[in-house]
Amino acid sequence: MEIALTDLAERIGAETPGTPPPELVVRGLAALRDAGEGDLSFFHHPRYAAELKATGATAVLVPPELGADAAPEGVVLLRTESPSLAFDKAARILCADAVRPVAPGVHPSAAIGAGAEFDPAAVSIAANAVVGDGCQIGDGTRIGAGAVLGPGSVVGRDCLLHANVTLYDRTRIGDRVILHSGCVLGSDGFGFEQSGGKHEKIEHFGYVEVGDEVEIGANCTVDRGRFGRTSIGAGTKIDNLVQIGHNVVMGEHCVIVADTAIAGSARIGDHVTMAAQVGVAGHLEVGPFSVLVARTGVTKSVPGGTPEKPAFYAGFPVAPIEKNRRDTVAPRKVPDILKRLKALEAEVARLRGDGDGG
Amino acid sequence: MEIALTDLAERIGAETPGTPPPELVVRGLAALRDAGEGDLSFFHHPRYAAELKATGATAVLVPPELGADAAPEGVVLLRTESPSLAFDKAARILCADAVRPVAPGVHPSAAIGAGAEFDPAAVSIAANAVVGDGCQIGDGTRIGAGAVLGPGSVVGRDCLLHANVTLYDRTRIGDRVILHSGCVLGSDGFGFEQSGGKHEKIEHFGYVEVGDEVEIGANCTVDRGRFGRTSIGAGTKIDNLVQIGHNVVMGEHCVIVADTAIAGSARIGDHVTMAAQVGVAGHLEVGPFSVLVARTGVTKSVPGGTPEKPAFYAGFPVAPIEKNRRDTVAPRKVPDILKRLKALEAEVARLRGDGDGG
Amino acid sequence: MEIALTDLAERIGAETPGTPPPELVVRGLAALRDAGEGDLSFFHHPRYAAELKATGATAVLVPPELGADAAPEGVVLLRTESPSLAFDKAARILCADAVRPVAPGVHPSAAIGAGAEFDPAAVSIAANAVVGDGCQIGDGTRIGAGAVLGPGSVVGRDCLLHANVTLYDRTRIGDRVILHSGCVLGSDGFGFEQSGGKHEKIEHFGYVEVGDEVEIGANCTVDRGRFGRTSIGAGTKIDNLVQIGHNVVMGEHCVIVADTAIAGSARIGDHVTMAAQVGVAGHLEVGPFSVLVARTGVTKSVPGGTPEKPAFYAGFPVAPIEKNRRDTVAPRKVPDILKRLKALEAEVARLRGDGDGG
Repeated sequence: MEIALTDLAERIGAETPGTPPPELVVRGLAALRDAGEGDLSFFHHPRYAAELKATGATAVLVPPELGADAAPEGVVLLRTESPSLAFDKAARILCADAVRPVAPGVHPSAAIGAGAEFDPAAVSIAANAVVGDGCQIGDGTRIGAGAVLGPGSVVGRDCLLHANVTLYDRTRIGDRVILHSGCVLGSDGFGFEQSGGKHEKIEHFGYVEVGDEVEIGANCTVDRGRFGRTSIGAGTKIDNLVQIGHNVVMGEHCVIVADTAIAGSARIGDHVTMAAQVGVAGHLEVGPFSVLVARTGVTKSVPGGTPEKPAFYAGFPVAPIEKNRRDTVAPRKVPDILKRLKALEAEVARLRGDGDGG
Repeated sequence: MEIALTDLAERIGAETPGTPPPELVVRGLAALRDAGEGDLSFFHHPRYAAELKATGATAVLVPPELGADAAPEGVVLLRTESPSLAFDKAARILCADAVRPVAPGVHPSAAIGAGAEFDPAAVSIAANAVVGDGCQIGDGTRIGAGAVLGPGSVVGRDCLLHANVTLYDRTRIGDRVILHSGCVLGSDGFGFEQSGGKHEKIEHFGYVEVGDEVEIGANCTVDRGRFGRTSIGAGTKIDNLVQIGHNVVMGEHCVIVADTAIAGSARIGDHVTMAAQVGVAGHLEVGPFSVLVARTGVTKSVPGGTPEKPAFYAGFPVAPIEKNRRDTVAPRKVPDILKRLKALEAEVARLRGDGDGG
Repeated sequence: MEIALTDLAERIGAETPGTPPPELVVRGLAALRDAGEGDLSFFHHPRYAAELKATGATAVLVPPELGADAAPEGVVLLRTESPSLAFDKAARILCADAVRPVAPGVHPSAAIGAGAEFDPAAVSIAANAVVGDGCQIGDGTRIGAGAVLGPGSVVGRDCLLHANVTLYDRTRIGDRVILHSGCVLGSDGFGFEQSGGKHEKIEHFGYVEVGDEVEIGANCTVDRGRFGRTSIGAGTKIDNLVQIGHNVVMGEHCVIVADTAIAGSARIGDHVTMAAQVGVAGHLEVGPFSVLVARTGVTKSVPGGTPEKPAFYAGFPVAPIEKNRRDTVAPRKVPDILKRLKALEAEVARLRGDGDGG
């Protein structure tokens, strides 16, 4: 696809200082360092200043305040409040062809259980998918190839379950939810009782409930409640390979980055961010507007912050980020301490008169 | 379902101090803080004392020694040695309806290989499952939708392989084993030989063997042996997203929590516990009755403990837990050390007479 | 299978000091400590010296320089430059029967999309696999049971996609690539824009490209580019449960061990090794010939090394390994520092005359 730059700028709401020639067109999207003639790129962080200065892009989305000399001469700068969001809009226009629309209908190889309720003219169920007995699926929802919906599951409207997703029985999914391939919702919680050196299984009769507009990444696992539900609040986004234990109650609009593990019965407030490889022990509370930086290990509950002042935590065991920074920096002072200690010891020995006489 | 409290207490072996009115019924199960009228709950740890004190449950399972004033007036306390186990028994009674029994039989969409051996009247094979050539499946076993059993695999009696489980060829599974969705048993070990800057693949001809009553969580991976077997001992329970390398020999009745990775050829004794996000390097031994707390990184073999005195380890690199605690606490003393050092330096300078004259 | 030892030695290019009796045969393969009569084993690291000394193997592959007294009398030592590689050759000969060849052809239960291009006489597609519209598959490639190839994917020659692999649309796979079960290529990158406390999804229109001779482990996840590609260079080997973010560019001949997570837009040079549980933050560069030991957390770019002198890094935050070692050892000196500080304080107090008079 090809679109005139002035046309594109108008459609995504970007300003063009000066008037670019009407014959200037954009055909592709690329990062600053990879971009060539015909490509649109974007600049949203000072760390890329050198790449902007050397880019071969035809046009670049930039913040309003950026000077014209930040890019090579001839590169058109399109000004907008959020270059990244504007770039996303441009991508949706330019890549409209790349994404094949999925027609509704049920592939003949899909297995549909007794009493499953959905409108075959409004839902798409791909090859070799399995829809269990008594499932309900809302209009506009697409079920990928090989996906399995356990009996009694309920999936809302306009959801996208990618290939090979697995829902255990009685999973409840809201509207406009995206589940990536290989993610598993509803597996048994990890609960056993010791009995004479053996581990007796505690049955898990609960289920998983996922709010509207949640996105869960590839190969994530979310265990069902022991009884009652494990729940993920509306608008929460979860990256790949994240583990959520049984009976976790996660708030709304959280962001949980890859390889994080949250143990059973933890309660996570709204608007919590967990960077990658975080761990949260069982039965703890992480307050709203907490930001846990990468590899934080939550070993006790943390109160969280406010919309105006999120609370940052770090380290294992967890601490407010400033305290963690001090503790981390401390060991680096030990060599200097040893040097000063040695000097003092020599000085004191001298003062005491050691080795003075002969 | 609804059951009279006196009736339920008798069936799960709990004692009722005083005699609850016969018309008192239980209809649901809930945690102390969520419970309302008609709910049974349980109390098993002092950290929940405040929640017990405020619970709205109709009845709560409690340890024998607990005083009647620990809960609001009117809440019936059912006394039992293990409130958690008794609650599990109650759940099996109350939730019997929620769990649909799976009828034996082979779904027409399942693909059954040549020479596969099982009794179709005693085994359940769900939609779009694939049973490879020459597989054997014991009576009472259920194979979930989309699960794949590689050629020559052997699965024992009364097993439960959830949807989308994958067994590579020649995997051997004992009796009463539970494999959760997305787990993969028998993938090649990660072994290569450097040869001129390239990595030449070492073929893995071995297999995976899983003992009786093992449970393996969702999206776990267990690599096959290079030759011979990778084995998981009877009664061992493995949480989600755990990685077990080629030729690992894991003992019986171990508990391995989420996100743990055990490298190739490690030997893990019986009754070992690994909390979440643990790592074990290759070719090491973790002795029996070892307890590795969360994030322990095993960089050398550890001897383990006894049934009476398990050995606790922590840290990366691994150390006995007391030593790790000392090493962790040490950096926090550096600010105080610096203060005392500065005071000493000033004092010594004064003693030496610096800056005195002038 | 059974093969004369002299015959086997010749076929794998190992030397036999003395001439073993022609009737001596090898039937199996085993580790030194497990080996018995009829087994071939190998010795490649001094840490196994005690096991070699006590082995029950009939024959052992050893390095050329090893003395005859390193093993029990009667054990035949086969000398070779690389015992491990020679053992691999022996395994391929002895286990030829164990590995069933897969006949080409398309299983009737597989779902093949419109316009898919491949030679059914040269390709094997197993039961319940799904090949999307417009896919291309090269000769000699095998697609496992339940695997899903999204529309427009291209898979090269002589690849092996194990059961339940998932490729999203437009994934591009080179020749002789191995993808293990449960791995997911092409899921959306984890990118959102904050907008009024909510997280707006950034659409990902890119794809994943995998070079020749790459191997990717079980349950790995590789996100597609936001636009353009996420790419894995030729010859790179990736262990299980590894996460690769959107737009990562990974070099050739890298080795990435289990549970590692690499965030979006990171650039990884050629010949990089990452041991287990490593993390790399987004937008950073890891130079060629870097070796990141287990649990390294890359928080800033690292320059890397050369073929002759790889650069070793460790710790979180990352540092050259020698610096990390010093920082790690420092806290252990704190108890000694405290002791010396206390002695000095007492001495200085004495010198100052405190408590002297009365």
